[in-house]
Amino acid sequence: MSETSDTDVEAVRAANRAFYAAFEARDLDAMSEVWHHGDDVVCTHPGWRTLHGWGAVGASWFAIFGGPQQLQVILTNERVQVVGDVAWATVDENLLDAEGSSGTIAALNVLVRHEGTWRFVAHHGSP
Amino acid sequence: MSETSDTDVEAVRAANRAFYAAFEARDLDAMSEVWHHGDDVVCTHPGWRTLHGWGAVGASWFAIFGGPQQLQVILTNERVQVVGDVAWATVDENLLDAEGSSGTIAALNVLVRHEGTWRFVAHHGSP
Repeated sequence: MSETSDTDVEAVRAANRAFYAAFEARDLDAMSEVWHHGDDVVCTHPGWRTLHGWGAVGASWFAIFGGPQQLQVILTNERVQVVGDVAWATVDENLLDAEGSSGTIAALNVLVRHEGTWRFVAHHGSP
Repeated sequence: MSETSDTDVEAVRAANRAFYAAFEARDLDAMSEVWHHGDDVVCTHPGWRTLHGWGAVGASWFAIFGGPQQLQVILTNERVQVVGDVAWATVDENLLDAEGSSGTIAALNVLVRHEGTWRFVAHHGSP
């Protein structure tokens, strides 16, 4: 579909993992860092309506990180595609809570490269 | 985020609508036409695991179109972004069945332009 360099794919993989590291750490600054801050970003959390714009998306992470649930995420089936300055990644988020129970969220993430840095513009997760 | 022409956005919108027209018509040929046929396409139907590759994705549409459910789709909140030869669209799929009951699916679609034609490379829908 395109000529994608391994370097590009690795950079996208790193950005994708930074997203999940921020999620696991409930670190709003780190989560903010991996997202593009624009009116055009979109985020669909499992069971939520789609949120539009960094304001709404950032607020949702604030609410989620303020909640009681501490989750460990084990990523499987990570696939990355890069075409030009856009990348999309699919991954299964295997979630483990403190009691060791688990669930799996299928995710589709879209990232855009802006001045050399890959940032999230879309995230959609569902059970 | 990018210089996107109205023409590009309109072409993506048309491809996005062709997807939902094929879905509503349960037309496998039309659905096949809007997808890129590669090992790298991905599709997450509501509640399903992510399917990888056109073989699995095409088979899923065959199964869905062979099922009993005839649905009308009313699209709302359609937003399209184009960067280079990649586009992504978010849309709410408001589904009406024969009994008039309804549900809403949030969708994120990714399309790639190949030789001038926009085709689906990823679809993720969830309630």
